[in-house]
Amino acid sequence: MKVDTLLTGGMIVTAQDRFVGALGIRDGRVACLLDSAAGVDAQQVIDVSGKYIIPGAIDAHVHFQDPGSPEREDLEHGTRACAVGGITTAISQPVNNPPVFDVATYRETLAGYEGRSYVDYGLHGGASSGNLDQIELLWTETGAPALKMMMCYSPKSYGMVDDGQLYRIMQILQKHDGLAYIHAENQAIVETLEKQLRAEGRTDPLSYLASRPSWVETEAVRRALILAEQTGCRVILAHVSCADSLEMIGEARGRGVSVFAESCPHFFTFIDEDIVEHGPYLKFSPVMRDEPNLRRLWELLAGGAVQTIGSDHCPYAPEEKTPGLTNIWDAPNGVPGLEVLLPVLLDGVSRGQLSMERLVEVTSLNPAKIYGLYPRKGHLSPGADADLVVVDPSLVKTLDLQDLQTKCPYSPYLGKTFRGWPIMTMVRGVSVAEGGAITGAAGHGRYVSRTN
Amino acid sequence: MKVDTLLTGGMIVTAQDRFVGALGIRDGRVACLLDSAAGVDAQQVIDVSGKYIIPGAIDAHVHFQDPGSPEREDLEHGTRACAVGGITTAISQPVNNPPVFDVATYRETLAGYEGRSYVDYGLHGGASSGNLDQIELLWTETGAPALKMMMCYSPKSYGMVDDGQLYRIMQILQKHDGLAYIHAENQAIVETLEKQLRAEGRTDPLSYLASRPSWVETEAVRRALILAEQTGCRVILAHVSCADSLEMIGEARGRGVSVFAESCPHFFTFIDEDIVEHGPYLKFSPVMRDEPNLRRLWELLAGGAVQTIGSDHCPYAPEEKTPGLTNIWDAPNGVPGLEVLLPVLLDGVSRGQLSMERLVEVTSLNPAKIYGLYPRKGHLSPGADADLVVVDPSLVKTLDLQDLQTKCPYSPYLGKTFRGWPIMTMVRGVSVAEGGAITGAAGHGRYVSRTN
Amino acid sequence: MKVDTLLTGGMIVTAQDRFVGALGIRDGRVACLLDSAAGVDAQQVIDVSGKYIIPGAIDAHVHFQDPGSPEREDLEHGTRACAVGGITTAISQPVNNPPVFDVATYRETLAGYEGRSYVDYGLHGGASSGNLDQIELLWTETGAPALKMMMCYSPKSYGMVDDGQLYRIMQILQKHDGLAYIHAENQAIVETLEKQLRAEGRTDPLSYLASRPSWVETEAVRRALILAEQTGCRVILAHVSCADSLEMIGEARGRGVSVFAESCPHFFTFIDEDIVEHGPYLKFSPVMRDEPNLRRLWELLAGGAVQTIGSDHCPYAPEEKTPGLTNIWDAPNGVPGLEVLLPVLLDGVSRGQLSMERLVEVTSLNPAKIYGLYPRKGHLSPGADADLVVVDPSLVKTLDLQDLQTKCPYSPYLGKTFRGWPIMTMVRGVSVAEGGAITGAAGHGRYVSRTN
Amino acid sequence: MKVDTLLTGGMIVTAQDRFVGALGIRDGRVACLLDSAAGVDAQQVIDVSGKYIIPGAIDAHVHFQDPGSPEREDLEHGTRACAVGGITTAISQPVNNPPVFDVATYRETLAGYEGRSYVDYGLHGGASSGNLDQIELLWTETGAPALKMMMCYSPKSYGMVDDGQLYRIMQILQKHDGLAYIHAENQAIVETLEKQLRAEGRTDPLSYLASRPSWVETEAVRRALILAEQTGCRVILAHVSCADSLEMIGEARGRGVSVFAESCPHFFTFIDEDIVEHGPYLKFSPVMRDEPNLRRLWELLAGGAVQTIGSDHCPYAPEEKTPGLTNIWDAPNGVPGLEVLLPVLLDGVSRGQLSMERLVEVTSLNPAKIYGLYPRKGHLSPGADADLVVVDPSLVKTLDLQDLQTKCPYSPYLGKTFRGWPIMTMVRGVSVAEGGAITGAAGHGRYVSRTN
Ligand SMILES: [Zn+2]
Ligand SMILES: [Zn+2]
Ligand SMILES: [Zn+2]
Ligand SMILES: [Zn+2]
Ligand SMILES: [Zn+2]
Ligand SMILES: [Zn+2]
Ligand SMILES: [Zn+2]
Ligand SMILES: [Zn+2]
Repeated sequence: MKVDTLLTGGMIVTAQDRFVGALGIRDGRVACLLDSAAGVDAQQVIDVSGKYIIPGAIDAHVHFQDPGSPEREDLEHGTRACAVGGITTAISQPVNNPPVFDVATYRETLAGYEGRSYVDYGLHGGASSGNLDQIELLWTETGAPALKMMMCYSPKSYGMVDDGQLYRIMQILQKHDGLAYIHAENQAIVETLEKQLRAEGRTDPLSYLASRPSWVETEAVRRALILAEQTGCRVILAHVSCADSLEMIGEARGRGVSVFAESCPHFFTFIDEDIVEHGPYLKFSPVMRDEPNLRRLWELLAGGAVQTIGSDHCPYAPEEKTPGLTNIWDAPNGVPGLEVLLPVLLDGVSRGQLSMERLVEVTSLNPAKIYGLYPRKGHLSPGADADLVVVDPSLVKTLDLQDLQTKCPYSPYLGKTFRGWPIMTMVRGVSVAEGGAITGAAGHGRYVSRTN
Repeated sequence: MKVDTLLTGGMIVTAQDRFVGALGIRDGRVACLLDSAAGVDAQQVIDVSGKYIIPGAIDAHVHFQDPGSPEREDLEHGTRACAVGGITTAISQPVNNPPVFDVATYRETLAGYEGRSYVDYGLHGGASSGNLDQIELLWTETGAPALKMMMCYSPKSYGMVDDGQLYRIMQILQKHDGLAYIHAENQAIVETLEKQLRAEGRTDPLSYLASRPSWVETEAVRRALILAEQTGCRVILAHVSCADSLEMIGEARGRGVSVFAESCPHFFTFIDEDIVEHGPYLKFSPVMRDEPNLRRLWELLAGGAVQTIGSDHCPYAPEEKTPGLTNIWDAPNGVPGLEVLLPVLLDGVSRGQLSMERLVEVTSLNPAKIYGLYPRKGHLSPGADADLVVVDPSLVKTLDLQDLQTKCPYSPYLGKTFRGWPIMTMVRGVSVAEGGAITGAAGHGRYVSRTN
Repeated sequence: MKVDTLLTGGMIVTAQDRFVGALGIRDGRVACLLDSAAGVDAQQVIDVSGKYIIPGAIDAHVHFQDPGSPEREDLEHGTRACAVGGITTAISQPVNNPPVFDVATYRETLAGYEGRSYVDYGLHGGASSGNLDQIELLWTETGAPALKMMMCYSPKSYGMVDDGQLYRIMQILQKHDGLAYIHAENQAIVETLEKQLRAEGRTDPLSYLASRPSWVETEAVRRALILAEQTGCRVILAHVSCADSLEMIGEARGRGVSVFAESCPHFFTFIDEDIVEHGPYLKFSPVMRDEPNLRRLWELLAGGAVQTIGSDHCPYAPEEKTPGLTNIWDAPNGVPGLEVLLPVLLDGVSRGQLSMERLVEVTSLNPAKIYGLYPRKGHLSPGADADLVVVDPSLVKTLDLQDLQTKCPYSPYLGKTFRGWPIMTMVRGVSVAEGGAITGAAGHGRYVSRTN
Repeated sequence: MKVDTLLTGGMIVTAQDRFVGALGIRDGRVACLLDSAAGVDAQQVIDVSGKYIIPGAIDAHVHFQDPGSPEREDLEHGTRACAVGGITTAISQPVNNPPVFDVATYRETLAGYEGRSYVDYGLHGGASSGNLDQIELLWTETGAPALKMMMCYSPKSYGMVDDGQLYRIMQILQKHDGLAYIHAENQAIVETLEKQLRAEGRTDPLSYLASRPSWVETEAVRRALILAEQTGCRVILAHVSCADSLEMIGEARGRGVSVFAESCPHFFTFIDEDIVEHGPYLKFSPVMRDEPNLRRLWELLAGGAVQTIGSDHCPYAPEEKTPGLTNIWDAPNGVPGLEVLLPVLLDGVSRGQLSMERLVEVTSLNPAKIYGLYPRKGHLSPGADADLVVVDPSLVKTLDLQDLQTKCPYSPYLGKTFRGWPIMTMVRGVSVAEGGAITGAAGHGRYVSRTN
């Protein structure tokens, strides 16, 4: 039996499985899973004894802001960050300039990505009040894994949808088994609270949190669930921050509603009062909650109430963030996160807060299935793309500025120490990063369309 | 690369995965999963092109009634039925004579099973009002996957537990990460209703159903959930019949409670009024519900609200059932089911009611994990026991008396036609049944202990 | 002891009480409640033996459409209908032309009412997206019992409020223990559904119902409850049509939220399919529901889940309604109801669906207290205004065109027979209607301000 | 107009009403309610200017323990305490020796009460596992306002009912619109926890609280609600201690279930940690909860979620309580409360925690209606019994040993100061207590049967 590459001695972990054995790669795909390396003829043998081999992470929530805002991020830098972070497929959010609101823009955006990416990538379509007549084609004529829509401005230039538009979009998507990807916060309430706080002269970081209390999210989540139940449309709720929201979603799932919950690394790391120290660098939406919520999030993640983790990587240029140091309202919302998505969760594994299988489920198998990338992505069975990460579970490292590959020169995670890091990332059998350094090349990454 | 047996050309389906490829077996274990058979040196090659290869079913709810009632069933006949039915591991319920209420009986029962089984087997311990002082040892000193307890008499000879005893048992099990396996119905209500119906002179089959309305189950399930939440004990609710119960359990799971739901093939086949035709042969508890409930059960199964399917195979001698033809109260509760567990679900797959992956999850991976048999059982990764079933998804067959291997000479399923049948069953790499005929031998089956 | 008028022999019924006795009136107020008439010196004695004496109804939901639309209704005609219908205080909705959106308009509207009314009257203030800066004064500087606001257009000319505005209004009212009176339907959904139905070419009456399914109301009610709970503002939900909404409100009340539910006579009379016969004459919003809902409404009314009944009397000129006969979308929303509010409920009393005490509670005491008219209105204790209705519980009469005093020359209630009718109405001790005929005079009715 | 007694100048308060005026009494009944005393010919005029006149309290939860335990309490002493406390009707619990389990005992118990009581009294029947065949007669052949039953032992000698018996009793009562009065705690859990605590050597007061955590009550309340909903029987839950229970009951009421909640003065006064100081003198069941619960109870009382307040007056002889000082398990459960029921609530009125109307509703009108004593009791309309209390709302007094009329020589309320005290109590027009001193006579009190 011949393979190109043979990884031996590792603990291979999938969403449900683990075994110590060997994994053979041929032509960029998994060729075999073996109990031993005996009798295999490999061009290259890599001994990963004592390490984990997991399917590469699929991050469906990345704002490359490309095209449009090269001062913030671009595909090259963003996917370099993916490579070192163990993210083998990144799905670009449509919140660019221009936003991905029709088939032509979808195609042009993809054309612009050609030959520039270090890892595989997808591209979401976008839905907003202005492009309802484009929704059906945007779904049927492109490979978009989901259409992204906002129940609040995020940012205002992208627009939002009211309940009627949301209902209409869900109706259309439901006909094609489409997926509505929803930022759920109550815009009118946020606006009112912000106006009141500004009128009171508040400019401090905590005032931003006060403008987006938990119920701003839970109310909108509940409304989205009602619409999901009425239309039968598949729905994923983006960046859920409240344990209460997750419980509501979990109960709807328990009743059989086709709804999924995404959460983000920052909600598993920071709490509300951290904004006092970090100010605009921890300004994003929804906001961080209190410490009991953080604890419940970890429990709910372990228990199954979170289906995917997305980074919501969304850098802004430093000069855009600094005005927020004196007036929190003057900074845009967003935080980088590609390099830390896996370390945050691996550190949780090291502390016993979730199993490695669960980590794989929420970072790889679930997103692959929810976003229609399965069976090429999301698992390591023979025939699947050999997208994988070798993890050193006992490596302890503190995030340092030079660990960052993103264009974004700041991170609230700097100085944080995690146990458990990716030490090699392979995309379709080719190493793209090792030990935090890029080993791949721009252009190795290919576009991945949804399959259904 | 050398293997003993190579299955080629099949669609290998696990709980999360599917791919067309080859599966190699060596020394009774899965040696490799391959994209092609090329370059493999196998003693035996079996071409299963066009068929599915799935992990063997694990049926955790089998009443062999052995020792104690050889006129009803015994290990030999029961495990022959498993073999043809695609059940590679059967876990014996402790409701025997003597019941498995202490370590000594556990060991004696196992000793009595030695050399008689056609498939692998486990043995649950039992808990009742009389053996609270044995619970801890029964869990820590045996390989019991769960302790079975009743919130109602089923049967009376086994006894039951009140809420205080249930709480105490859960407390003890929680300390050791044990599993409480609970038959949840409200005994006092059942008794009262039965007494009233008998006093009214009711002896017809429907009167039996009237003695166990849905809320008799939902109330007890809710109570069990409260205790699970208070103690933190892992709990599995046996043979759940009501969609409402599943929703309650699903909501508790959504909140992070460690609780699981088992349901049974008969609830996916029969509805309440079928008892008019079948009388005592469809007398079991909990009872069948109405047609809308049946439809919701299939939806909830597909949606994830059922974690395991157990047959609750529980035959009685024909002479015990026949008195029920004239007076429904005079028949004991129980129905056979080993041969039909997979066909009932495979037929659902053929009608699009659930995916093959989901079938594998509820019949194999989930029970393996819940009952601590994983990683030996429940999946087909290298190193796992080569327990598998080859399924012909397009075989249409009507269940006939001669298809039954159990001692029980009747079945309410006779005459029912299913699309999708097991055509070969392997236990640790050895064929034990093919085309409905036994190919294995008594004694091939081995005891499987829980691993944690 | 001297009184002006003595009613003798009647069964005096209040919200909690009933006794056979005499009621003395002096200077327009209740002077005494007596076990017998002995020893009382009365100018006028009215024997009402065999009849009920109940506090006059307070209808807080009347669209006089005055000023602005004299072709539809005006204060004279509307309050004549009140007089014969047993409504002794009518609170005018602010949905006039001009709408009552500021203090000046409030005062001008009241000035225009001077000397024209047959019964006592109040006037609600109005809130909409355009007058947020007027809310505080409108509450503190007028006697408005509530501020009325819409979560949907009803009609479009009045405007509506989004969640942020609703929240802001509730905040302001909460500071002054004010009352938000809310029409709760989801505008965006209604609009979307209507557009879809129109696009399908639907113009039939049932298509109108299809544009406002139950969840359009229940979703908005739930949202209003969330805002009520967040702000602590007192809230009354107008014209609740769904039993599910009432249960949600009841549960919030059970938790201690200060929220009230109003329902209307038409929801206790008509069901969805009645629109096929009546077309535009049964077009209003929210819409009628199915028959099981109607039955649940009566049960919930008896059980306490409805706090007030308002007529939502809202006539349109016949020529405005007739276009709806050919195209349901071409008719405006509204139905007259002043003359039938009490007969609909009294008929329910005669059928045993609610007690006379409960009728008094929802038609008089509760509205008096909720809207701040108590202690002058809403009961018959000494000192209270002698606003009362003599009811003949055994009078059976079919509503006929000549029974109508309103300007509106049609009614879907025509031809309906009720058991139980007002036979005399007194406002502050003066008879204003007897046996369906007007005995009072325009100008007897006085403005009633809220007292707190 | 002639009356025997005229109370003038007081603020007359009923459950819904208040007005300043005069109240005339003739032949023990209310003859008239007047706006002024002018023209009334009264034998006796009592000026109560500046005071409140409220309907006498009806305490449906009094353990006179008569016959059976004269060392604890008896009818004479108990009803003297009622008289000074403003309780004009006391309903005796059936938990005597012998317990009131059949018609004969009911009659004998009543016969024994003849001529001994200072206030009017009723007598509940009892239900337990042993007297199911007596339930129907006990309801139909006596004037019992309710049948009292326990879901736990309280005390063991009285017995309890299991769910089946409870269901059966509710079925029987439902046929006759009867009322099930239920002590809801989960016996099996209490027993288990107590056994565990004793086994740990715990004998301190807090260990008693640990044996009856909140969920012991909430679980049983939920179960009782399920049975109430299934049978349609009217149910009142005795001495509810948890705000969570009240919310569940409130939600069931919101759905239309006929269920009522009683709470007790001690739950509005003491919190869990007070047992450290008072030990056995604050030992009763259910137990006191934490401070947030106390705050929520007051809110829920004001908001309507409590329907009646009963004292659960249940004294034990001092020598029975003292062993609890060294070992909390050695004291019986019970606390006296007749003298403080009204002061505890009046003090709440003085602090603005509830209105006087609400106080009247829960202490008089509601119990009169729930227990079938209305229209003779519970209000002050002409024709009703002149049972009333004159309250001085500004009297501030500290409870002292000599204020107690009960036989019980201790009280955890001693030293507590309340603002608002009864200063005169009249039963059927006759003064029975004034200024804390007895003015009535044994034998003035009469038996009151339920009227329906
Ligand atoms: Zn977002
Ligand atoms: Zn985002
Ligand atoms: Zn069972
Ligand atoms: Zn069983
Ligand atoms: Zn309206
Ligand atoms: Zn209206
Ligand atoms: Zn009790
Ligand atoms: Zn008691």
